[in-house]
Amino acid sequence: MVYPLLGLKQKAVVLLSGGLDSATALADARSQGFECYAISYDYGQRHRVELELAKEQAALQDVVKHITVQVDLRQIGGSALTADIDVPKDRNEDEMSHDIPITYVPARNTVFLSYALAWAEVLEANHIYIGVNALDYSGYPDCRPEFIAAFETMANLATKVGVEGAKMVIHTPLIDLTKAQIIELGLSKGVRYDMTSSCYDPAPNGKPCRHCDSCLLREKGFAMLGMTDPLVGKFYG
Amino acid sequence: MVYPLLGLKQKAVVLLSGGLDSATALADARSQGFECYAISYDYGQRHRVELELAKEQAALQDVVKHITVQVDLRQIGGSALTADIDVPKDRNEDEMSHDIPITYVPARNTVFLSYALAWAEVLEANHIYIGVNALDYSGYPDCRPEFIAAFETMANLATKVGVEGAKMVIHTPLIDLTKAQIIELGLSKGVRYDMTSSCYDPAPNGKPCRHCDSCLLREKGFAMLGMTDPLVGKFYG
Repeated sequence: MVYPLLGLKQKAVVLLSGGLDSATALADARSQGFECYAISYDYGQRHRVELELAKEQAALQDVVKHITVQVDLRQIGGSALTADIDVPKDRNEDEMSHDIPITYVPARNTVFLSYALAWAEVLEANHIYIGVNALDYSGYPDCRPEFIAAFETMANLATKVGVEGAKMVIHTPLIDLTKAQIIELGLSKGVRYDMTSSCYDPAPNGKPCRHCDSCLLREKGFAMLGMTDPLVGKFYG
Repeated sequence: MVYPLLGLKQKAVVLLSGGLDSATALADARSQGFECYAISYDYGQRHRVELELAKEQAALQDVVKHITVQVDLRQIGGSALTADIDVPKDRNEDEMSHDIPITYVPARNTVFLSYALAWAEVLEANHIYIGVNALDYSGYPDCRPEFIAAFETMANLATKVGVEGAKMVIHTPLIDLTKAQIIELGLSKGVRYDMTSSCYDPAPNGKPCRHCDSCLLREKGFAMLGMTDPLVGKFYG
């Protein structure tokens, strides 16, 4: 987004996990003309390879600055993604869509967005991008549009930006898209999906398990476009 | 709070900084009958002695569990409380009440409440206590009642608790009290104010500077009750 009279680019803080969705959200923010600042979170996730891929994506997509914040969720526990609980495998779509799964990290997006908000305030950025998705959302309450809207309202009361009359906007370009549509969007903007990781339980080198909810949804998305996931091609091809 | 029929105590997560306000909020939560879980935040604050005093308060007030979470705000910067910026001294009340001061930590209460929310969800606690105060609030936007109300709304959309029909409640027992009234409340519940720290720039042993906004407000509160702050008595008496 460019101020028409000044020709100045506006800043956006983009949550970047190293996964398929956030890589696409970043590409979308760039294509809207924002100067992008990427923030990643080290929360003791078992899929740590995604932090490496977040760095790669930040470099590939030419962000102004990329930071990785240590987020201390292990003490709080309660999720298969951070605690010693098995990641569920080979669930069908009915199971995925009806239950809040054990991979749900309590209040994760609230914590992540709060850090993004703090950084946005320091940078004087009024825009935050997050690649949440309500359709393929795997049962997480904090991926729903009503959650995002409530966070935005709160953010405008929490910060100097709100007090001083500007407006903090939370952008969710993927919220209504299917996984296939997200992939199409990203491919149209040149996203390198071989340099992303979505698996909840990958091998240390990034090889996806192909059985967790996230792998299943991702492969299905590529299949609907008549494609093979380039990440699967890289490790299993 | 006790379920009348079951005689079971309800759980509350209490934000505990080691300062005067949060020690009072904890005492209030206990006196309401909650089983209290205290959470403190190590965010690289220069007034680190307060973390020691948070531990002391947790022990004195007999909480079920106390955790200190590492909160990585230094990378984000932007405040005299975490960055290498001087803490302002000897400001008058007009200066305190009209500007957002440099001691404001961007989105701090949003980040802190987010962690408390995550822990509450894991504990299956539906109550969070925070000792924010709108009158003596020193110009911080995230101490206002409208911020807290917006956070509560968001919290109920962010979490399983909200989805499953229970309600997460954010309690702010101090929000409308003057500093003198907060102190009166705490004294009535036996809070040991000599074992708290409020100074933004204390000596390593906890000796308060007596010149920052926080010291000035605190001393004035005790003075209005015709008392000497026991903390001042301890170090300067």
